[in-house]
Amino acid sequence: MPKDAGEDPSLGELGESRVLARIFPRLPSAAAALVGPGDDAAVLAAPDGRFVVTTDLMIEGPDFRPAWSSPHDLGWKAAASNLADVAAMGARPTALVVAIAAPAGSPVSLLEGIADGLRDACESLAPGCGIVGGDLSVSATFTIAVTAFGDLEGREPVLRSGARPGDIVAVSGVLGEAAAGLHVLFTRAVDGHGEPDAGLADELRELTAAQLAPTPPIADGRAAALAGATAMIDVSDGLAIDADRVARASGVAIDFDRSALGGEPELALGGGEDHSLLATFPPTVELPGGFRRVGTVIEAEPGDGSAILLDGVPHPVTGWDPFADHSAE
Amino acid sequence: MPKDAGEDPSLGELGESRVLARIFPRLPSAAAALVGPGDDAAVLAAPDGRFVVTTDLMIEGPDFRPAWSSPHDLGWKAAASNLADVAAMGARPTALVVAIAAPAGSPVSLLEGIADGLRDACESLAPGCGIVGGDLSVSATFTIAVTAFGDLEGREPVLRSGARPGDIVAVSGVLGEAAAGLHVLFTRAVDGHGEPDAGLADELRELTAAQLAPTPPIADGRAAALAGATAMIDVSDGLAIDADRVARASGVAIDFDRSALGGEPELALGGGEDHSLLATFPPTVELPGGFRRVGTVIEAEPGDGSAILLDGVPHPVTGWDPFADHSAE
Repeated sequence: MPKDAGEDPSLGELGESRVLARIFPRLPSAAAALVGPGDDAAVLAAPDGRFVVTTDLMIEGPDFRPAWSSPHDLGWKAAASNLADVAAMGARPTALVVAIAAPAGSPVSLLEGIADGLRDACESLAPGCGIVGGDLSVSATFTIAVTAFGDLEGREPVLRSGARPGDIVAVSGVLGEAAAGLHVLFTRAVDGHGEPDAGLADELRELTAAQLAPTPPIADGRAAALAGATAMIDVSDGLAIDADRVARASGVAIDFDRSALGGEPELALGGGEDHSLLATFPPTVELPGGFRRVGTVIEAEPGDGSAILLDGVPHPVTGWDPFADHSAE
Repeated sequence: MPKDAGEDPSLGELGESRVLARIFPRLPSAAAALVGPGDDAAVLAAPDGRFVVTTDLMIEGPDFRPAWSSPHDLGWKAAASNLADVAAMGARPTALVVAIAAPAGSPVSLLEGIADGLRDACESLAPGCGIVGGDLSVSATFTIAVTAFGDLEGREPVLRSGARPGDIVAVSGVLGEAAAGLHVLFTRAVDGHGEPDAGLADELRELTAAQLAPTPPIADGRAAALAGATAMIDVSDGLAIDADRVARASGVAIDFDRSALGGEPELALGGGEDHSLLATFPPTVELPGGFRRVGTVIEAEPGDGSAILLDGVPHPVTGWDPFADHSAE
């Protein structure tokens, strides 16, 4: 609901320092922060002498529509998607830095809502993880850039390249639900002109939550590493394409069991943005946390053959390409 | 010079994986990288169990104009401005992650030029520092988000809050030159309609280089820490406003010597984007590297008085506010 400017002034009306003063108290502090926000840089603890780092952009248009995503959703998803990349290395997330560029006319409640979403995602998905720094700027295109850090706690990182023939292929988290939610938004949460409609999106929330505010199984990344996972990846572009990345990096192939992929195996294999974890484990391992078996690592075919199979039959690998699939011009 | 699409295809024509394949070979690797680009996250060494982290956005419009800045300039400045924040903590820069969002129709040579600028800035300003990860996305507004890391090598970070009355105030790097360059661009590198003109900017390069491709004294950050600097800051918004931040964080005031600020003291005090280093040192210290004395730390006035003085006279503090000073809408 729009508020009058007195309650909800624009970023331009408030100016940077007063915007920051309204956002900072909402952000969670990080247990690992030795020097937090407010200096030229933060200082973070890296107890085992290493740290994990990943970065991701969320851009209005290709990545979200303000009519569908609340500010809280945006903050939540920006945190969750980056936390999943840290988890996929077998690390425990420790901190985020967050840079936001918004039109000067945006209400400050937009940034407050994002801050609340960042906080709630950290507290819910990765307790102890907090925000240690950031940047605010003005842009015609609303943009959120998150960089996330993690602690390997003395373990080796779990890479994409360690899968071996005979390993179990397992997934923790949902498959295809984010893509199904996106389909619902594009087909049922649009007005007569095909434009995103906030009211319709609200009514369909139950069907779209996995897309708008995903809940990746962050703690299962560490659990997989402790259980001896040989390879792991965040399922961000689709199960088939992300499994293909693991298979090619490891020099193996992956054979999925159709019966383990639910009622819509093609949706499970092709849908992106679930931010679930795909991991491979030695065959003797008891699967940890929420992991369930979905297939088996097999020897790669000689030559340039398919690295992804479904019940033994080569399966096409398709996924999202930000430049080829979307033009924001 | 525009090339035909065969030589210089757009990002949309190439697709993400082929764009990355053209950029990666141009980027410098980081000596501290234990796991580099290509997995869900990178792993970096933090030998003393801590790391410094800072992040900054560069947005087309408020931060740069493509007619004035070459792609190489953009990569250089994105690296240099973040390296300066790491240096201002007294740390040695170790690595960057870089996220770029560009219109799908942009030529790949734009990203190649940025990659070359990032590389040349790292090699020139912070040898050993490299790129360990990033993200590519599509956006109507060209955006570069850099997060930079540094190693304190066992030292305490140099904060803004440590200046003490009697300390020397010193600067390494230019003052006012970036602002002077910006003034030249806005007054002399525009066409009859006031629009940025690439040809005129080229002719004026000598006068604008400090603005378009600053060369902050990165190594002097570490040198200042080793010499015992009590406080330090990257002069990004202007000497007066950044000195005011040090003074207020330290509970002191800073008195600048007009005679030490060159021929245009007001430009030196008010001009932003120099990315020089302002540091305070105990009075007995021999100033390291390129540092020169520009003033003295004095006791703060009781109450809400000015924290910045020029030859003993209170001086106004003004600086750049991204939201109040620029509307990109």
